[in-house]
Amino acid sequence: MDLAMVGLGRMGANMAERLVRGGHRVVGHDPNEEVMARAAEKGIESSATLAAAVDALPTPRIVWLMVPAGPLIDKLITELEPLLSQDDIVIDGGNSMYKDTVRRAETLQKRQVHAVDVGTSGGVWGLQEGYSMMVGGETAVVDSLRPLFESLAPDADKGWGHVGPNGAGHFTKMVHNGIEYGMMQAYAEGFAIMERKDFDLDLHQIAEIWRHGSVVRSWLLDLTADALEKNPSLEGIAPYVSDSGEGRWTVNEAIELEVSAPVITLSLLERLRSREPDSYGDKLLSAMRNEFGGHEIKKG
Amino acid sequence: MDLAMVGLGRMGANMAERLVRGGHRVVGHDPNEEVMARAAEKGIESSATLAAAVDALPTPRIVWLMVPAGPLIDKLITELEPLLSQDDIVIDGGNSMYKDTVRRAETLQKRQVHAVDVGTSGGVWGLQEGYSMMVGGETAVVDSLRPLFESLAPDADKGWGHVGPNGAGHFTKMVHNGIEYGMMQAYAEGFAIMERKDFDLDLHQIAEIWRHGSVVRSWLLDLTADALEKNPSLEGIAPYVSDSGEGRWTVNEAIELEVSAPVITLSLLERLRSREPDSYGDKLLSAMRNEFGGHEIKKG
Amino acid sequence: MDLAMVGLGRMGANMAERLVRGGHRVVGHDPNEEVMARAAEKGIESSATLAAAVDALPTPRIVWLMVPAGPLIDKLITELEPLLSQDDIVIDGGNSMYKDTVRRAETLQKRQVHAVDVGTSGGVWGLQEGYSMMVGGETAVVDSLRPLFESLAPDADKGWGHVGPNGAGHFTKMVHNGIEYGMMQAYAEGFAIMERKDFDLDLHQIAEIWRHGSVVRSWLLDLTADALEKNPSLEGIAPYVSDSGEGRWTVNEAIELEVSAPVITLSLLERLRSREPDSYGDKLLSAMRNEFGGHEIKKG
Amino acid sequence: MDLAMVGLGRMGANMAERLVRGGHRVVGHDPNEEVMARAAEKGIESSATLAAAVDALPTPRIVWLMVPAGPLIDKLITELEPLLSQDDIVIDGGNSMYKDTVRRAETLQKRQVHAVDVGTSGGVWGLQEGYSMMVGGETAVVDSLRPLFESLAPDADKGWGHVGPNGAGHFTKMVHNGIEYGMMQAYAEGFAIMERKDFDLDLHQIAEIWRHGSVVRSWLLDLTADALEKNPSLEGIAPYVSDSGEGRWTVNEAIELEVSAPVITLSLLERLRSREPDSYGDKLLSAMRNEFGGHEIKKG
Repeated sequence: MDLAMVGLGRMGANMAERLVRGGHRVVGHDPNEEVMARAAEKGIESSATLAAAVDALPTPRIVWLMVPAGPLIDKLITELEPLLSQDDIVIDGGNSMYKDTVRRAETLQKRQVHAVDVGTSGGVWGLQEGYSMMVGGETAVVDSLRPLFESLAPDADKGWGHVGPNGAGHFTKMVHNGIEYGMMQAYAEGFAIMERKDFDLDLHQIAEIWRHGSVVRSWLLDLTADALEKNPSLEGIAPYVSDSGEGRWTVNEAIELEVSAPVITLSLLERLRSREPDSYGDKLLSAMRNEFGGHEIKKG
Repeated sequence: MDLAMVGLGRMGANMAERLVRGGHRVVGHDPNEEVMARAAEKGIESSATLAAAVDALPTPRIVWLMVPAGPLIDKLITELEPLLSQDDIVIDGGNSMYKDTVRRAETLQKRQVHAVDVGTSGGVWGLQEGYSMMVGGETAVVDSLRPLFESLAPDADKGWGHVGPNGAGHFTKMVHNGIEYGMMQAYAEGFAIMERKDFDLDLHQIAEIWRHGSVVRSWLLDLTADALEKNPSLEGIAPYVSDSGEGRWTVNEAIELEVSAPVITLSLLERLRSREPDSYGDKLLSAMRNEFGGHEIKKG
Repeated sequence: MDLAMVGLGRMGANMAERLVRGGHRVVGHDPNEEVMARAAEKGIESSATLAAAVDALPTPRIVWLMVPAGPLIDKLITELEPLLSQDDIVIDGGNSMYKDTVRRAETLQKRQVHAVDVGTSGGVWGLQEGYSMMVGGETAVVDSLRPLFESLAPDADKGWGHVGPNGAGHFTKMVHNGIEYGMMQAYAEGFAIMERKDFDLDLHQIAEIWRHGSVVRSWLLDLTADALEKNPSLEGIAPYVSDSGEGRWTVNEAIELEVSAPVITLSLLERLRSREPDSYGDKLLSAMRNEFGGHEIKKG
Repeated sequence: MDLAMVGLGRMGANMAERLVRGGHRVVGHDPNEEVMARAAEKGIESSATLAAAVDALPTPRIVWLMVPAGPLIDKLITELEPLLSQDDIVIDGGNSMYKDTVRRAETLQKRQVHAVDVGTSGGVWGLQEGYSMMVGGETAVVDSLRPLFESLAPDADKGWGHVGPNGAGHFTKMVHNGIEYGMMQAYAEGFAIMERKDFDLDLHQIAEIWRHGSVVRSWLLDLTADALEKNPSLEGIAPYVSDSGEGRWTVNEAIELEVSAPVITLSLLERLRSREPDSYGDKLLSAMRNEFGGHEIKKG
């Protein structure tokens, strides 16, 4: 198939490359020329403008957006609207908030342009191992894109699926990331407990043992074993954990749906906590203990 | 009444003083001579040895232990055993683990000595405002000590009670402290949220407002207002929160009783967390994010 | 002072009554005629329409809204706009989301009408004990309302204050309720632990003991003692805990501000959990245990 | 090698069978005759008494205990002591508390009998896929058992290892199970959120998608997909989740080591909560809300 890939950052470039390998024609567009040049080496066509990228495609056109979630998506859709015509398809493969996705699909629908949302997992390993994709949109439209998903997935019939209407793909990916937070935190806590114990445990060895036959074996454990092999004491790494937004949305969504999700929630809070070394709350606790019990305050 | 007070630290000295004010005769004993001298100024008799303190009492003798929980209590009981005789009473007014209390009561019972456990709350304010006391032991024995409790409590008939058999006093006090952890953490989190918000709120003012008429008014809030008046920005205070053991016991006990107590539990964990600025788990999370997503690691 | 009180439900009627007792003239309006008749008996004037209530006031007019948070506030403000003129004041004394409050203040400001937000705590006890009020708005405007706050508060100079600009009053009240959730949950867990223990504890007695001299004494504990006196086994009460919205906002706000607030958060989740007796997640856990370990599934 | 397998329940029988397949001679003993008969069909020798099992072995003898953790292990060790002689080896392959394991090793050492602890993961799938084993004990002793571990593991050099001194194997397995609780809870929460959402998601389909290429792929997810394929609505399964002890130990151990492990801890509490449909704490919360706010109580 022919498609435009808008955004050739790490994720976009890798997906475009995997599509080219799968026999598709990819017209790439990115404001960063260096990125465009690198993409060209992989067989991705370069297009200096969005309009040119769209023009280079046969109808109905397929435009795949692979850019950071947020206002940039709205901006691109506004730019695309006059360039697209009936039955064209705009795919958002990033981590958009699913409510934004539903709203955008309604906007595009007014111009008879179809929206498809693809929640994409796989990270930097996707190029090599294939991407896991949760697809939201109209059934016929999603079906028409099948060759693309078959090329991007680990296997033609594995690792992707049409999960529901517009927004359902991003919703499912959001929950996926919430689960990811919880799993990561579970491992992190377990290894921290072992690190503290005076058994002088070799944490890389234990991760390797668990990778084979244990109940906790997983791809995240494989990566953990990798990380511990390279740097068992995690020297030089700050205890500072970022979050990219999807965890927060999952927590808010769970509350809105009135589902108690304590582990996913605490995983997010732990990340916030990791970035708060000078907690006002903890200082106040120390001051309160001093007030009622005369307990000594540690100077800070 | 006549009694020996063993341990004249902050809590013991204050309680002895309040008993003296209540018309009781208190024979004090403490290895620290300076502490003994200060107690003497408050009308507390000094006794250089445990044996002398016991000898100074009429039978049945009442020995009140007010020392740190743990092996010291066992040591003192071992020392007391040969000094005591039938119907004497040993009171443990400290924060002993209630299971130890049950065990010690059985030991003393073999010599026909009675044990009484007094879970004592009130901190440094007890001297002035009276102590809240949860008493465990045999009914007749506890009844015989009524004049002491009436003098120590805020009012003769308020703030104390016989709550159950040996151990029940310390058990109740343990849960009291668990609740205290949860309340403190709730306030700390609320004030931390307000401190972060760009409304330039005066946290001392808000604590004062809440002290009158609000649903969250409490003695802990009064103390929080005090602390915030003295030091609104909590400058010079480290975000480091100690714990004295009773919170851990409450958490373990809740699990043993199969009662889910997430807030009391998280209050304890937050204190542990406050003392772990260099968390191995958080470093591992950062390393894992780098492995799967190529996310940058903050250097530490 | 003269003011209109719009909404004469439990909170509005009690506040109006306390204002009348304080010597103010209150013109009441409520769509429910029965409620209006009851208010009239307390000396509150009745006004059949919002327009008539406004007309009955001298300028600058003061209109106090005491209605459920949400769209009704917007509807009332839309109705009020043509009725009000420069320097009139609209007070929102309910539990509005503070971001809505900021937005509404901007709308009113365009017509030179002033907005004031009053976060009000005290519940059904406020009539008798006075209300705790956190006030947001312009300084001169809030100052001009001082006589009203002095009458409503527990004491003229206690229990209320001007905490910041528009929205700051509702923000502070929101956090107050978050803290309230945490404190309530801490008590609930503590009493549940004691209820489960085989010491046959009298929970009402313990609540009473703690009310005097203990570190956990509070108004919520006073009410807990009341509740346990009436119904110590809590017979006939479903383990079903509602939430009114402010807890959720506090949790979302904490995440937005990147403050980790685990105890307030878990208090909310516990309430959600109480309404989920047939948890899908728990069923899945049981099914998973069966899959990997052959553990028996309890039939449901 | 020759060894006795004491306890031929699900785990013991499967491990014995895998050892026989690996060319080892296994003398089985179990009080349940039916179980012994079934084992005999798999090539496991039957021994009616513990003494006979021991007698059937060449020296140094290897006795592998595969029975439920707790007093039964102590009982068996007491029975074995007179039967064993210098350099014999007792392996505890069950889920013993690691502190018990350390104590038992010291007891056996006094008779110059060696103890080895094998934390064993793999559940009912171990027979087919191999077991993951974390081994604690003296290096030379563990080395002498290598052929057994190589047969039991998924591969000769994968999925097992000597992790430390006596107790270290069980300690590591305990933490493994703590992590398992956290991962399971993360999945359970995520699927519960998706189940609640009105996108009519096919949860089995989503589990299958995630199995390939996603960040959350794992063996537990494979099993979850299996469970959801058989019973997508989880009909007939009670929301009741048991726990087998290792989660509790992990939580207690984390607290003892002063490592904050909120996710593992909350995973345990959620299981306790699943077995408390009639929570006293939730009833009290409802009663408190009624006291201060006049909020209606749901009848129970």
